[in-house]
Amino acid sequence: MEKRVYNFSPGPAVLPVPVLEAAQRDLVAFPGAGCSILEISHRSKTFDKIINEAEANIRKLYGVPENYRVLFMQGGAILQFGMIPMNLLRNSGKTADYVVTGTWTKKASAEAKTQGSVRIVWDGKEGNYNRVPKAEELKFDPNAAYAYICSNETIQGVQYPREPDVGGVPLICDSSSDFLSRPVPIEKYGLLFACAQKNAGPAGVTTVIIRDDLVARSPEDLPSLLNYKVFAEGKSLLNTPPTFAIYVVKLVTDWLLNTIGGLEKMAEINRKKARMLYDAVDQSKGFYLPHAESASRSMMNVPFKLSSDELTQKFLAEAAAVDLCELKGHRSVGGCRASIYNAMPVEGVEKLRDFMLDFAKKNG
Amino acid sequence: MEKRVYNFSPGPAVLPVPVLEAAQRDLVAFPGAGCSILEISHRSKTFDKIINEAEANIRKLYGVPENYRVLFMQGGAILQFGMIPMNLLRNSGKTADYVVTGTWTKKASAEAKTQGSVRIVWDGKEGNYNRVPKAEELKFDPNAAYAYICSNETIQGVQYPREPDVGGVPLICDSSSDFLSRPVPIEKYGLLFACAQKNAGPAGVTTVIIRDDLVARSPEDLPSLLNYKVFAEGKSLLNTPPTFAIYVVKLVTDWLLNTIGGLEKMAEINRKKARMLYDAVDQSKGFYLPHAESASRSMMNVPFKLSSDELTQKFLAEAAAVDLCELKGHRSVGGCRASIYNAMPVEGVEKLRDFMLDFAKKNG
Repeated sequence: MEKRVYNFSPGPAVLPVPVLEAAQRDLVAFPGAGCSILEISHRSKTFDKIINEAEANIRKLYGVPENYRVLFMQGGAILQFGMIPMNLLRNSGKTADYVVTGTWTKKASAEAKTQGSVRIVWDGKEGNYNRVPKAEELKFDPNAAYAYICSNETIQGVQYPREPDVGGVPLICDSSSDFLSRPVPIEKYGLLFACAQKNAGPAGVTTVIIRDDLVARSPEDLPSLLNYKVFAEGKSLLNTPPTFAIYVVKLVTDWLLNTIGGLEKMAEINRKKARMLYDAVDQSKGFYLPHAESASRSMMNVPFKLSSDELTQKFLAEAAAVDLCELKGHRSVGGCRASIYNAMPVEGVEKLRDFMLDFAKKNG
Repeated sequence: MEKRVYNFSPGPAVLPVPVLEAAQRDLVAFPGAGCSILEISHRSKTFDKIINEAEANIRKLYGVPENYRVLFMQGGAILQFGMIPMNLLRNSGKTADYVVTGTWTKKASAEAKTQGSVRIVWDGKEGNYNRVPKAEELKFDPNAAYAYICSNETIQGVQYPREPDVGGVPLICDSSSDFLSRPVPIEKYGLLFACAQKNAGPAGVTTVIIRDDLVARSPEDLPSLLNYKVFAEGKSLLNTPPTFAIYVVKLVTDWLLNTIGGLEKMAEINRKKARMLYDAVDQSKGFYLPHAESASRSMMNVPFKLSSDELTQKFLAEAAAVDLCELKGHRSVGGCRASIYNAMPVEGVEKLRDFMLDFAKKNG
């Protein structure tokens, strides 16, 4: 086997090794099917079992109530940025409330403006998106079509410790980069979606958990694949779904249930991993500078800076030399970023923490 | 290794075994990358090389002119059914011309009607879609926004021997089930698209070959992922693309170029395979009844009937018992259908032909 490094990429990101090994084993001939998982008909009993298990696993992990659909769609989070206002805002005569906490909510609100009236409830640009708003900073419109947040901003590394109170308005949440990383009270959401390539599987499938009353709102003048109602009625099989990506989601959720033991356990491990890195930053006496304020820190993406570009380059090069890879921060924040999703093993984070301590000692 | 059968599924469909073996080999650790192909960043040099090679291969195979973009999108053919009229019909003040030759053009024209004015130029329903129209049956509107055809109807097994003359109007073609199966003069098309899961790779990626003047037509009030112009400017990397599916498209097009030797060679093999089955049907003295008229017969999907449902069931069961699988026809046509895409080996078709001759002898 080729060498595997510790991959701190923000996504596509690290997957559990047992998941990769299972997918590899079945890639030429899926047991009992006589053909590869890539060649199996989406109308076959074999695939029916796979997609039903993937859905059942997500329902079980989150405790998804009966009045919610779990859909597997294509197009990533950015297609949802368009579909949400196409289905729930356009022709509603209402305004949608967006809370802008970083790159992805900024992008989502811009996409929504092509479809209807958007109000920015709060915008964190003054602090270069280093925190989520406090409860008292948020005044939602009780007549809004919906209120929109991103639970975890991948680029800025800011995460809501818990969802804000939006009153009676449907809460829409982009959970792409913290999906399945901790328990979430789904009943507080109207719609929660996540592309797979951070915590749930490979790029190419997006999970949408949507409440029945929102499904019912879809207008009739939309192409079928862009219409939540039609898509939900077709049970994600309106056309050929991304079969392989859904199969990997099934394997990852199997792993979460059976190897990890559920989302409480996963969250505990994730908190432990994040604490190691934030402690290394906080105890460095300013050698490493955190981007996010303490109360808004992400358990998934840990951005931090060093005092100069030169030192940052040195850090990245020396880290890569010991197989700690993909640690470069996004250009809008700069510095470094460690993405430590579910599948990043504790040993990988320990190794990074030790490297950080050592590097600070030598260069501080 | 688990047993592999001959899989005549209409899609997701058979893939070349060397492609599956290569994908399997790299699934845990891609050579030189230190992580799985599923975990590689879409912004990495490794993936950049993969997507560029996939595009270059398609350009080389089809001889795609310089003034065409090759895009890798999500959402399958059905998202294109919506995107084409959203980008090229809505707000154009024009009508779009659709030629309805089977299930997929019927569906495409219905989706287009949600976005604008559609004219059905010809509809083959009288013959239950058993042929493509003759040149003299087609009168295209010289002021149409575009003229739309499906080069090969997967369900009915009817295929245009060559594209109709649509005058100066942009010709749009759904080539999902005959993509890369024969040479095509791309310069005669405005836009040609194909989902991957028949001839090009796994489900989850759709190739769109689009001329620059059509790219330029996209209106500004569309979400970015649904806008050809924005998507083309982003070079298919507007958001995370389905990286694994694109990687398999690269492997399949490598195979077409290097193992098969190009589309002329592929077409020759495909004609030979199709002829074997059509000869078996034609020489059966009515035991097997073809669906499509001779001049419209598909080289990819071969639907045929037996005299009763009972005999059809017997045929399917006995075929499956000797590993000739997925031969059931679609309910709208009935009977049987053998999908014999590029990756179906000649031996698989020979085995089916021999089985058909033997079955007719025993049951005729």
